[in-house]
Amino acid sequence: LRAMLTFTGDLERAQEQLGAILSGSAETILRKGLRPEASGARIVSFEIIEDVLKLHIVSDRYLRSHSALLRLRGPLVDVVGRECSFGLRSMRIDETIIVPVDKKPLRKLKVPFAKEVVYLPDEKSVRIELENVDSSFLEDGSIDRIENLVYDKIEQQYYKGKAERRTVIWESPRKPVMFKQDPTIVLEKLGWIKQGPGLGQWFFGPQMTALFRSFETLAVQEVLKPLGFKEVICPKVTPFHVWEKTGHMAGSEPEIYYVSLPKSRDIEDWEKVIDLYKVTKKAPVKEIRRMLKDPMGGNCYAQCPPMYWALEKKVIASESLPILMFDRSGVSNRNEAGGRIGFERVNEFHRIEPVFIGTPEQVTQTKDRLLERYSLVFNDFLDLEWRYVDVMPFYLQQAGIVKTELSDRLWTGTVDFEAYMPYRGERSASEWLEFQNLSVLGDKYTKAFSIKAQKGELWSGCSGIGLERWIASFLAQHGTEQQSTWPKKLLDYLCEIPTWIRFL
Amino acid sequence: LRAMLTFTGDLERAQEQLGAILSGSAETILRKGLRPEASGARIVSFEIIEDVLKLHIVSDRYLRSHSALLRLRGPLVDVVGRECSFGLRSMRIDETIIVPVDKKPLRKLKVPFAKEVVYLPDEKSVRIELENVDSSFLEDGSIDRIENLVYDKIEQQYYKGKAERRTVIWESPRKPVMFKQDPTIVLEKLGWIKQGPGLGQWFFGPQMTALFRSFETLAVQEVLKPLGFKEVICPKVTPFHVWEKTGHMAGSEPEIYYVSLPKSRDIEDWEKVIDLYKVTKKAPVKEIRRMLKDPMGGNCYAQCPPMYWALEKKVIASESLPILMFDRSGVSNRNEAGGRIGFERVNEFHRIEPVFIGTPEQVTQTKDRLLERYSLVFNDFLDLEWRYVDVMPFYLQQAGIVKTELSDRLWTGTVDFEAYMPYRGERSASEWLEFQNLSVLGDKYTKAFSIKAQKGELWSGCSGIGLERWIASFLAQHGTEQQSTWPKKLLDYLCEIPTWIRFL
Repeated sequence: LRAMLTFTGDLERAQEQLGAILSGSAETILRKGLRPEASGARIVSFEIIEDVLKLHIVSDRYLRSHSALLRLRGPLVDVVGRECSFGLRSMRIDETIIVPVDKKPLRKLKVPFAKEVVYLPDEKSVRIELENVDSSFLEDGSIDRIENLVYDKIEQQYYKGKAERRTVIWESPRKPVMFKQDPTIVLEKLGWIKQGPGLGQWFFGPQMTALFRSFETLAVQEVLKPLGFKEVICPKVTPFHVWEKTGHMAGSEPEIYYVSLPKSRDIEDWEKVIDLYKVTKKAPVKEIRRMLKDPMGGNCYAQCPPMYWALEKKVIASESLPILMFDRSGVSNRNEAGGRIGFERVNEFHRIEPVFIGTPEQVTQTKDRLLERYSLVFNDFLDLEWRYVDVMPFYLQQAGIVKTELSDRLWTGTVDFEAYMPYRGERSASEWLEFQNLSVLGDKYTKAFSIKAQKGELWSGCSGIGLERWIASFLAQHGTEQQSTWPKKLLDYLCEIPTWIRFL
Repeated sequence: LRAMLTFTGDLERAQEQLGAILSGSAETILRKGLRPEASGARIVSFEIIEDVLKLHIVSDRYLRSHSALLRLRGPLVDVVGRECSFGLRSMRIDETIIVPVDKKPLRKLKVPFAKEVVYLPDEKSVRIELENVDSSFLEDGSIDRIENLVYDKIEQQYYKGKAERRTVIWESPRKPVMFKQDPTIVLEKLGWIKQGPGLGQWFFGPQMTALFRSFETLAVQEVLKPLGFKEVICPKVTPFHVWEKTGHMAGSEPEIYYVSLPKSRDIEDWEKVIDLYKVTKKAPVKEIRRMLKDPMGGNCYAQCPPMYWALEKKVIASESLPILMFDRSGVSNRNEAGGRIGFERVNEFHRIEPVFIGTPEQVTQTKDRLLERYSLVFNDFLDLEWRYVDVMPFYLQQAGIVKTELSDRLWTGTVDFEAYMPYRGERSASEWLEFQNLSVLGDKYTKAFSIKAQKGELWSGCSGIGLERWIASFLAQHGTEQQSTWPKKLLDYLCEIPTWIRFL
């Protein structure tokens, strides 16, 4: 690490004392807290020219060069203050980081803030040259995160394109195939749904809406209420600062519907945009873009982040645990681009999201109970052919991590629920529809938002009930026409399907 | 108007015939369909230089210069095709438009595409110099819209800042003031609501959600169902092309939450953004902005545009009229900026929006029935002190337009419903909360979306039921504590208010 500390005046009077601190530092300041076998950090050279102190530090992993620099900064500034009565103006750093890696990168690595990233085959290391970063960069942990990024990127190069491992945990008995059509096409022909004005959106007429509300009530009454889940209403536009905590900014970017606010709310500032519209009858998108602030976040992607946010930095009384809540107060948007299918995989959809927070035991128990209630609904009310699948990302398999079993007290992970879609082909050859999931997240989100229990660990879990997908799964297997043959228990929940407009 | 028509070759061989067409045009091509007293348009001069034909046209209002040019283009191109076997490459136009106006502009006018806009006091006219516009500009009616824009802008300069005229049509008896606190503050203290992670958003805990769902059910069961309104589910992200038709692009711009999609859904294209986040733990908004397409529209602003859009270009059988539908399937966003107040005037809110479409009689009758049902709810179920107000924009008053009365068969306009908010001060000195509105829109939207009835005229109307504002009005007058003193009829709809978390 080479650092350049610029002070607010000539360092001549402090020269001797600075030299003394730096020369002795390897055995004093830089030695503190180190085990005897660690060599730590040492000053290779230093130079004082007028108001500038230049340092060259090398180190091993036990005390990193930038940590050494931060340790030295205080004493150096103190001396200068005492001898010369002035202070530090700025600190710029060039640092070379050597990251030992156990795999050779398959392609060139790019790392932010780095001038150069080079793999050294002999040392089995990656050398990263950071140039001209400032002190806040050292202080906020960015350098450690750069090292993690290197490990991540090499891992990604190896597992890229390889599928996650999906293990079927349970599957329902085969059901006779009664229907082989694509429900989207059938519903469009019936006039129950109509493609929306934007990509991957649908307008539901009153018939589809009645069916939708029936399924929604079924989910609330048969799954959530019996377990004691309480409804909340969550904000839907999500600012980046929430996703910075949940980690959605580490990979959801390509799917987000970004939201930008206007630079001004004064109508006069919008005169040109409005005039252009009035003359051309088209929205002048380039002009509008110029009138927008930087994006502030995006539309609801998952519903749970604001629920955790609402509990940020709270300590929860034991008697209030587990916290069981759900939200169904608006749409979610995801840019599915080429992945859109019918009304079942879309850019705008309606999800009920239950979140549960409690001790590991409570979270595990809630997961088990949800699984029971879901099974009851899919078997008895919807008479589905379905299965659930344990999903293990490839990188975990590669890392040799043995996942715990679903029945294990300490199970964390995600289970996907999948339904057979006869219109897509044979059971084994076709893609089943993932119509729901259930996750136990351990302390990932409670830690991220500093939510604490009165005592002990606090875990959480969540589940996404995709109502469009419940309906698509059911209709793909049971059809739309023979409502009299639908399961008796579902019929109890079914609202009357109203008529709609006759178009000429 | 000066036009420059560039052809794909030298015009020498067609010179004579072009001259003949242009010289005779005032009595032939340009005369067609004109009344004898109109002088119409004539060619002042023309010039042919190699592949370019230059024209100078003047006209009165009966046949506008640009219309004259479009009439001439066909015959000119025909002749060139016949004589020289080549065609028109491009047509560029400079046009001077004289717009007679009855008021002097108070400030300099700006008009898009115009190089210069000058008021001519002697002619009581505005002269607009358009420079180098292309032929599509003439063809799509932009020039006529530029004239309308000039009228609009002068009107706006006169009524700017002047309030709309609000006429109280009806007001309830005064009610005893039982509560004088700001419900937002009370609800925050109770822990029923919490300010959201973004501006003007709120998180509703289970207690507030129970209250909210009670009011929602009240509105649906006591207002909408008895009149036969059917629920639909509308797309929420609204593309600009829908707002181009509804006219929201003529002034809602400062309030819109704009939505932009990513340029790419390939995660590799997002590597830099993701890496920056992983290192700094902050969303790199400048980088993200660079990765976005131009905005494609915005979040739901009003719920009705997609309902009209769903019926675009349809002809409705008489038996299906009136169409009565409502949507409550997601949030609306408006950038209220400095106008935000508590949880009652916010950037993100929940509205039930009924829309009614039918003959003028049916729309009028539905408006009357809605008014009846609303009155019943506000008087008997909510026991509110409220009034409704006819709103007439200043420019209509100025224009001397006499508005029809609400009881009139042909009434179009908007009625605002306002509630007295005791915490804001005395009845006459304080601002009442506009908690709902009701509009009859005539054929504005049915025309814009070309929706037609089997026979006769087709009108529409809509109403915005702001659920946060219903609740705010009620709580401001009745308080949160003494639920036993709330109106009996409301209590029948009230869900049990659950408990929530005890925080330590």
